[in-house]
Amino acid sequence: MPLRELQYPTEPYSKVNRLKDRADYALEAIHRIVNTCPLLHVSFQAPGSPFPAVLPMIGQMGSFDRPSADLGDVLDLYLHGYVSSRIMNTARSSSSSSASETSTETSTEESKEGIPITIAATHLDGLVLSLTPNSHSYNYRSAILFGHASLVTSVPEKLYAMELITNSVVPQRWAHTRVPPNAAEMQSTSVLKVRITTGSAKIREGGPHDERGDLEDRGVVERVWTGVVPVWSVLGTPVVGGYNEVGEVPGYLEEWRGERNREGEEFARGVAKD
Amino acid sequence: MPLRELQYPTEPYSKVNRLKDRADYALEAIHRIVNTCPLLHVSFQAPGSPFPAVLPMIGQMGSFDRPSADLGDVLDLYLHGYVSSRIMNTARSSSSSSASETSTETSTEESKEGIPITIAATHLDGLVLSLTPNSHSYNYRSAILFGHASLVTSVPEKLYAMELITNSVVPQRWAHTRVPPNAAEMQSTSVLKVRITTGSAKIREGGPHDERGDLEDRGVVERVWTGVVPVWSVLGTPVVGGYNEVGEVPGYLEEWRGERNREGEEFARGVAKD
Repeated sequence: MPLRELQYPTEPYSKVNRLKDRADYALEAIHRIVNTCPLLHVSFQAPGSPFPAVLPMIGQMGSFDRPSADLGDVLDLYLHGYVSSRIMNTARSSSSSSASETSTETSTEESKEGIPITIAATHLDGLVLSLTPNSHSYNYRSAILFGHASLVTSVPEKLYAMELITNSVVPQRWAHTRVPPNAAEMQSTSVLKVRITTGSAKIREGGPHDERGDLEDRGVVERVWTGVVPVWSVLGTPVVGGYNEVGEVPGYLEEWRGERNREGEEFARGVAKD
Repeated sequence: MPLRELQYPTEPYSKVNRLKDRADYALEAIHRIVNTCPLLHVSFQAPGSPFPAVLPMIGQMGSFDRPSADLGDVLDLYLHGYVSSRIMNTARSSSSSSASETSTETSTEESKEGIPITIAATHLDGLVLSLTPNSHSYNYRSAILFGHASLVTSVPEKLYAMELITNSVVPQRWAHTRVPPNAAEMQSTSVLKVRITTGSAKIREGGPHDERGDLEDRGVVERVWTGVVPVWSVLGTPVVGGYNEVGEVPGYLEEWRGERNREGEEFARGVAKD
């Protein structure tokens, strides 16, 4: 246990420039936001495209070399490659270097470490309603990671990542399905590993804040309702599939669902107050 | 009313390559996903950075020139610039061209039309639990827009966008706050307008699907629960702020909240079945 928690270095591209008191560079805070986010937004510059590509993907941070690592340790991000054929193609084509499309520096970096990508994980926790539109805000937790993505080729590491990602959707789900994946499934599923260069988080909690001028205006304060509408994501009663033959919704699913719903509400309500 | 609904052109960078039957290029479908999404993920290539920037932002599509335009019409995207100082700086610095950092083509494009950005809007609607980890999926609605962003300088257009964005957080909120913004607020708030080049949506609905091999395996089908856990975002009971003096939570907020919660649940449950 280090005396101080590990922090990511602040690079010009990762530094929080606005409302710096909301910034957090601690690995644990950042990794927690990422690992509780059911959808990540992954961005990379596809060669020949005038716009960056952005893909919603499922991912999870972990350590294949040291599976017992906790959230505050150095971790890799594993992304489920099913929807990422464009990244895969970019990763593949980047090794057969095309210097005309990217700068020399970038090509070298790509073939050595994988393609540079940025990952965003964001939770919306509340609508902060204040006296003026200008001071309206959200309560939120937002993390950004920067790193280099490459295809996982080792079978044990791929299986580790597949289990990690499946269990991030529903804890214990992997062991309750038909595993291990067969040869065709291993072939058709790709997993990307992102070695993280750095990252940052930005968090807003608490009630509304307004300027003194409005707070002292009786007419405004007496007319405009101010407070927070807590927001969280709910997991509803499971809907049975067409070919399901299991009589009851399993306990591992129902217990986790109840817990997640309670925690979601508690958290959003908890951060709604100053 | 055109005979066929308007569609965005499919460019190499916007085309859905995988699971094409989930793709939708209709303006209405795409704009609806964007305008119901409380957080957008905005990506652009900052000069000198090895990684694309990704920022969570609030935005809304509309038409200042024709405010009565509906979701199926050609619209612009307005982004609240509060958190976008890096885009703003990039937009500003890109006009004082620095050819060393970007290709000639890009520089010309930037100074003419604004900086190229990509916007992602994603709704998670359900966890699709099937027999094997490989066939697990999400129900989701995802939209991507590509366009060029520039700062809104016209005061009436900026006010139009500020009202549009405020009312997207809570309908009718603008008129129930202290408006119009004063000179200092107009000065400190930036609004970005994105002229859309093209876009696409990808939508997954329905129950689980599995391979014949697993469906015919009695042991597997009798052991693994399959179905969908519907997911939606809930707006909880409002938490009164520290300086609120309005006795009751206003009707426009409570009615909308109830409606949004009902619709969210109905939608997620509705798409959970085949």
